[in-house]
Amino acid sequence: MDKLTLHEDPRSGNCYKIRLTAALLGLPLERRQYDIMRGETRQADFLQNVNATGRIPVLQVGDQFLPESNAACWYLAEGSRLIPTRRFDRADVLRWMFFEQYNHEPNLATLRFWLLFVGEGNLSKFQRDQIMVKRAGGEAALAVMDEHLADRHWLVGDGPTLADIALYPYTHVCEAGGFRLKDYPAVCAWLNRVSGLPGYVPMN
Amino acid sequence: MDKLTLHEDPRSGNCYKIRLTAALLGLPLERRQYDIMRGETRQADFLQNVNATGRIPVLQVGDQFLPESNAACWYLAEGSRLIPTRRFDRADVLRWMFFEQYNHEPNLATLRFWLLFVGEGNLSKFQRDQIMVKRAGGEAALAVMDEHLADRHWLVGDGPTLADIALYPYTHVCEAGGFRLKDYPAVCAWLNRVSGLPGYVPMN
Repeated sequence: MDKLTLHEDPRSGNCYKIRLTAALLGLPLERRQYDIMRGETRQADFLQNVNATGRIPVLQVGDQFLPESNAACWYLAEGSRLIPTRRFDRADVLRWMFFEQYNHEPNLATLRFWLLFVGEGNLSKFQRDQIMVKRAGGEAALAVMDEHLADRHWLVGDGPTLADIALYPYTHVCEAGGFRLKDYPAVCAWLNRVSGLPGYVPMN
Repeated sequence: MDKLTLHEDPRSGNCYKIRLTAALLGLPLERRQYDIMRGETRQADFLQNVNATGRIPVLQVGDQFLPESNAACWYLAEGSRLIPTRRFDRADVLRWMFFEQYNHEPNLATLRFWLLFVGEGNLSKFQRDQIMVKRAGGEAALAVMDEHLADRHWLVGDGPTLADIALYPYTHVCEAGGFRLKDYPAVCAWLNRVSGLPGYVPMN
């Protein structure tokens, strides 16, 4: 495999997904860090050479650049035990990864970012007006996971997959965005299963 | 392959993606239609037997149910020419599919839904307050596509892939949401390439 470099802000759960995937698979990953709060991914060098949209994470594979956290995880995990061998189960892993980016991350990650890093007092009126809708959306996403995990150990099949890796980061720190994990007991048990995996690395 | 049934509302671009994938690959797909404006996916039968979240599309494969449009497209297209053989290119296809669900669909599809189906006069104040942000987000997504397509025919590699199929539906009808396609000439040329593919079927 070509040399792997992760362009990241270590506080981002989307970046952590990729580090966690690499750690669980024992893949070496060089890290290049940027401070998004100081606009370091909006500077000319990053925009020209890493990602024209100014967004992280970006996984660099040799001299090719791959944005989108879940696509980067897929690149790393192809052929490994983190992607199931059954065709339906592979698509079902992607189902949870798309659920994460559509229903979960925009609510849980955004509220964490606003409340923990921006600060409630610094939010615009437009942002404050969205808090209740994002709270409800995030609670609905956690409820879907809790119901699904009530009678199984992992999101897809009998073992951990990229579906679990994609949903773990912003779930396990969601209380920083004002969510209450104890309302979701099956999710809490699953979080402990993920953090107990051999090779697990914490977010910070 | 098990019998394939698409649970859909035919006006939804997310449902159309799956029909277009099946058509391009010559796969038979039975269609079961619901009217989301009349709440037909929120009724007990649908919630219990198809998708507990009340969302469409859902691809039924035999007696298994797969939500999330892009996961369903992946299920149908595995092993076909719509998924590249190079490992990096496969992940790059997913990169554009996640871009579609995170940066594109929430802006282009939502504004089309609000303006074409709900009607501007019926929007809540919360929805009206979001129009400008969704307009800017959608224009940014179209600009990313236009710049990427300026010197290539397809989003990934040398031929059509699921990346093109995923981004086609809500792009080609985005003017119903108030976007101007003529501002994006490379996107317009690409739309014509997609609609010229052998086996192409229109949205309605």
